[in-house]
Amino acid sequence: MSQVCKAEHIAVGSEILLGQILNGHARAISLEFAAHGLNLYYHSAVGDNMERILQSLEIARSRSNVVVVTGGLGPTKDDLTKEALAAFLNRPLELSEDSLRALEAYFVARKRRMPEENRKQALCISGGEVLPNPNGTAPGQYVEADGVHYFLLPGPPLEMVPMLKNEVLPRLRTVFSNQTRIVSRVLHFCGIGESDVDEQIGELTAAKNPTVAPLASEGEMLLRITAAGNSDTEAQQYITPVEQMLREKFASFIYGVDDETLPSVVLKVLSGAGQTLAVAESCTGGLIASMLTAIPGSSAYFAGGVVAYQNEVKEKQLGVHSETLTAFGAVSEQTAREMAEGVRSRLNSTYGLSVTGIAGPSGGTPEKPVGLVYGAVAGPDGTQVFRMQFRGSREQVRIRTAKQMLWRLWRMVVVKA
Amino acid sequence: MSQVCKAEHIAVGSEILLGQILNGHARAISLEFAAHGLNLYYHSAVGDNMERILQSLEIARSRSNVVVVTGGLGPTKDDLTKEALAAFLNRPLELSEDSLRALEAYFVARKRRMPEENRKQALCISGGEVLPNPNGTAPGQYVEADGVHYFLLPGPPLEMVPMLKNEVLPRLRTVFSNQTRIVSRVLHFCGIGESDVDEQIGELTAAKNPTVAPLASEGEMLLRITAAGNSDTEAQQYITPVEQMLREKFASFIYGVDDETLPSVVLKVLSGAGQTLAVAESCTGGLIASMLTAIPGSSAYFAGGVVAYQNEVKEKQLGVHSETLTAFGAVSEQTAREMAEGVRSRLNSTYGLSVTGIAGPSGGTPEKPVGLVYGAVAGPDGTQVFRMQFRGSREQVRIRTAKQMLWRLWRMVVVKA
Repeated sequence: MSQVCKAEHIAVGSEILLGQILNGHARAISLEFAAHGLNLYYHSAVGDNMERILQSLEIARSRSNVVVVTGGLGPTKDDLTKEALAAFLNRPLELSEDSLRALEAYFVARKRRMPEENRKQALCISGGEVLPNPNGTAPGQYVEADGVHYFLLPGPPLEMVPMLKNEVLPRLRTVFSNQTRIVSRVLHFCGIGESDVDEQIGELTAAKNPTVAPLASEGEMLLRITAAGNSDTEAQQYITPVEQMLREKFASFIYGVDDETLPSVVLKVLSGAGQTLAVAESCTGGLIASMLTAIPGSSAYFAGGVVAYQNEVKEKQLGVHSETLTAFGAVSEQTAREMAEGVRSRLNSTYGLSVTGIAGPSGGTPEKPVGLVYGAVAGPDGTQVFRMQFRGSREQVRIRTAKQMLWRLWRMVVVKA
Repeated sequence: MSQVCKAEHIAVGSEILLGQILNGHARAISLEFAAHGLNLYYHSAVGDNMERILQSLEIARSRSNVVVVTGGLGPTKDDLTKEALAAFLNRPLELSEDSLRALEAYFVARKRRMPEENRKQALCISGGEVLPNPNGTAPGQYVEADGVHYFLLPGPPLEMVPMLKNEVLPRLRTVFSNQTRIVSRVLHFCGIGESDVDEQIGELTAAKNPTVAPLASEGEMLLRITAAGNSDTEAQQYITPVEQMLREKFASFIYGVDDETLPSVVLKVLSGAGQTLAVAESCTGGLIASMLTAIPGSSAYFAGGVVAYQNEVKEKQLGVHSETLTAFGAVSEQTAREMAEGVRSRLNSTYGLSVTGIAGPSGGTPEKPVGLVYGAVAGPDGTQVFRMQFRGSREQVRIRTAKQMLWRLWRMVVVKA
């Protein structure tokens, strides 16, 4: 079959529209579809309302050939998804003896009586298939009608995800077996703005295969290179020269690929060099330490840190001289230098990283405005101090400071290594 | 005007459909709309594709009178949202001199030359209004056409959220001023599970006015009480007795209301008592310090902290005895106690808070499994140590630890005060 997949996802649940829960299924399904080269063009979410669910199915049928619906398969009166699809396709619901037995076994295994209202979960749309749910009470459904493949999956993530992987994707791989393969490569940049990158690669973003798309994030940006081919290998062949060219152009700004993050690459280069890091934070107040320690295994290369919010702490815990603080102030090149050198020597690490600045919203002066940050890295070859001026909210100043300094440290270690 | 709000949200961005980022805006917008009593019936997401964006606008116009679109307002060729809405409404794009000046000032302030391609961000749909963006380069847009209110907002969350609150909601409150008033009150709980609360308030969650809806969050939970009335005062009258009853039942678990957070209430009680805090973190690795210092003004009550990942740091920076570490281990009641007392005395604060535990995923033993955490609070009346056992991922263990300990500290200070 040479048909091309045009899929969409519909999440059903009033709690999503009220903002009470995040629609995380949309992302999980998108990731799996992209990894299998299956196009997914739309997400939508709709409340537990028969009329609006029917209208969403109507829209989906008009533009898609795969419709994955999550949620609304529970036992309560609010759970309407299966009833809606049956009505939409004008097919009756029939009791599935297999489903009923599985359901009864589920309750027996938990030593609980099956409530009467759960019986409706054993109903199956006529002509459809039951998708077994080993992790909960709501079975899924698969129905094909007029060339459109409908999948109904339960809402709880620990039930939905296994059913997606074990039941939905194998069926779709068969249906769309001959289609083009899609491969993506993501390059992460720091220290350079989206528009500066974009300006230098103008012709690339206009290309069709591979496509190159920029995405700004707080304090960094990424470029996604996506290619299509008859095989993964062919698609990869279109990506390689573009990646190479970008790496030549932006060498010191590209810190990582795909799932890598600034803290993960910092820990990687430190572990590669057998080196350690300690941090002394004023305006970021523990954020840098927290980003690093979020990574499993960080304890081997991250010695620890000092959050030196008050001057007394800078003096006592880091050995910053009170004369330095008096003469130049807490937010100064000199204080940043002494903080980095102090934390390095006191925590006995290869590198010491420091930041001191004014995160705002208050505390700025004409000479030292909000967003002014000094950062320093002390290492075996001496100390480098950086003056940075950020804009934005307190949160933005903190995040941008943390990422900039991790990127500068990464560059220093990489160049040395 | 007696029109009723029927809103929907459209997120634009191929990265969402590829699963590379989560569509968090949908939830943020839903929460704000719900809090203002504005109905929001659909979410959708669509890639950076002119034809599909136009089709999504067509669907939206047919069923909604408020359409909030996020993303696609950047300077690149991929950013199509404004161009799509202009084409959809058949209106030209006009240069806004004000926008251009703001954009140029943005770059001047950053001492950067404005790239030529950013000019398109100063274009405004004819007859529409520019929504200023003090936090980035992409201004928003507001256009009303044939009774439908269109809002275009930038994709970065730190730009989108302030614009939503400062520009979108005030306009919608005016447009839909005569409708029933909805008032909400959110109570934040820590130290008690959702099902325990739910079991004790069963009859309340079945009520219609006010409704009481539980919502679990990482390491805490909240109850949202929502009432409808002809005026805010009337709606508030339905809420007050329910809130009072809940406060009697769950006194020590309800730490805050509405926008309050654990770090914000901790800083509030410390500032009320004129007291200060220092933290010593092992397994949370700076997370607690980072949560506290994210709050503006925290520097007056938060002295600082030590991230003591390695034993040597616990000894040298906190004065933990090497005999304690040898005899009981880093993850022990005794070490937690010495860490809290050490950071309190060294940073000269009223309270010292410590945590030491096994965040995982590796590092656990049968005696000390992953998720085991000891925390301590040292204060003027001595030291209390807590043993906690959490389930879940590294991230979950860290967040739950941080919240539990902030809640315990809050309770101790409140009881003393």
